[in-house]
Amino acid sequence: MQRYFIDQVKTGDRINIPKDIAHHLVTVLRATVGTEFELVLADHQAYLAKLVSTTPRATAQLVEKLGKDSELPVSVILACGLPKTKEKPELIVQKGTELGASKVVFFEAERSISHWNTQKQTRKISRLQKIADAAAEQSHRNAKPQVEYCASLKQLLADYSATMRLVAWEESAKSGESSRLYQSLSKLHKNDSVLAIFGPEGGLSTAEVSIMEENGIIPVGLGPRILRTETAPLYFLSAVSFITELSGNS
Amino acid sequence: MQRYFIDQVKTGDRINIPKDIAHHLVTVLRATVGTEFELVLADHQAYLAKLVSTTPRATAQLVEKLGKDSELPVSVILACGLPKTKEKPELIVQKGTELGASKVVFFEAERSISHWNTQKQTRKISRLQKIADAAAEQSHRNAKPQVEYCASLKQLLADYSATMRLVAWEESAKSGESSRLYQSLSKLHKNDSVLAIFGPEGGLSTAEVSIMEENGIIPVGLGPRILRTETAPLYFLSAVSFITELSGNS
Repeated sequence: MQRYFIDQVKTGDRINIPKDIAHHLVTVLRATVGTEFELVLADHQAYLAKLVSTTPRATAQLVEKLGKDSELPVSVILACGLPKTKEKPELIVQKGTELGASKVVFFEAERSISHWNTQKQTRKISRLQKIADAAAEQSHRNAKPQVEYCASLKQLLADYSATMRLVAWEESAKSGESSRLYQSLSKLHKNDSVLAIFGPEGGLSTAEVSIMEENGIIPVGLGPRILRTETAPLYFLSAVSFITELSGNS
Repeated sequence: MQRYFIDQVKTGDRINIPKDIAHHLVTVLRATVGTEFELVLADHQAYLAKLVSTTPRATAQLVEKLGKDSELPVSVILACGLPKTKEKPELIVQKGTELGASKVVFFEAERSISHWNTQKQTRKISRLQKIADAAAEQSHRNAKPQVEYCASLKQLLADYSATMRLVAWEESAKSGESSRLYQSLSKLHKNDSVLAIFGPEGGLSTAEVSIMEENGIIPVGLGPRILRTETAPLYFLSAVSFITELSGNS
């Protein structure tokens, strides 16, 4: 069933549908009075809703609260070294949203080839946020992840805190370490937060990883195969979901 | 380091490099005599190799065996309902290869909108196989996954066997089932094989899932969010890697 996010709080059983959503619902999907769909309000509560009027403006009735919450039990911030191509950030944001990320931050790593000036940042982040919003609706999330930009690793470490901070580090896997990720994620509890850092195409530099280690961030391997910059965050989120949502551990 | 697959067996310490690889190595990467790279021979053994001549033909010396095997301890066959767009099979094959799949089969599901006739199958599978080969080199696999096509679910069930057979089924997640995937994957042992079936964009039909259940295939949920047809196999492979390679269980 179609799901939409509406940035409003519940004030009664009826709710006015914003124009862009009304357009999608009535013109694109050809919904008529009586059509059911899902609405997530500003407090992340999802409702089964029914269209009760289309003119002069679209109005919905909130039929019932939907009990199921599809958010990960822990909030995961993905911090990704800015990739070179346009497609990779889009893929990370779309798939990261489906897989439950609460935030996706692109930061300029030492080996990032791209650089987004202020104007480009605004344009790019706005486009990526739209991709996140659409993916959040499609995957039936209860919250839309935020997409953000960060000029440097230093700023990233200053601005983003979490109860657990990890960095995906290929050399960690090469050195034979193969269980730190499992051990770390097994310790997560409901409502914990995780900051997970990933390098750009060329990987992180040893200097960057040293700075992170000095800041208490734990290097973890993601298995013996070399994952591309856009694949590693998806592996990570899948592992978080698998251990926190499916294992019965938390 | 650059890795190539060569369909030859070891007969001595020197090996003739096929023309396409020689072209990539010498012309694209500008390798010269003495440049080191990795070769995986037909028996899936990886070697550190050194270029010893470029003309009249490129020849390499096998310096040493590389001990590390980057294959998943279990072989995973992904069987994906044929998606509508060109991009989705390509994404599944590329990322599925990075994440360790041993085979990717596209089958025509009830709700598959695309249909590949014999000519199209040949062309499409050949292109997808090239994507798999390139991804296997880049991710430092020891084996290239096979990409295959299957005309129907019936044929899929007849042609592909495995020690464990699972189907990703959204309704399984909706009904509150949330640990069958974890329970199943926890039981895997080294050298087991897993057939994992995924629906196309519109999902599998209840009739298809019934047929699978009659054949002993277990429906498993992949968490509470709705994953797109190309995301579900990546979640699955990540979970297999996480439990078999990082948990210390197997």
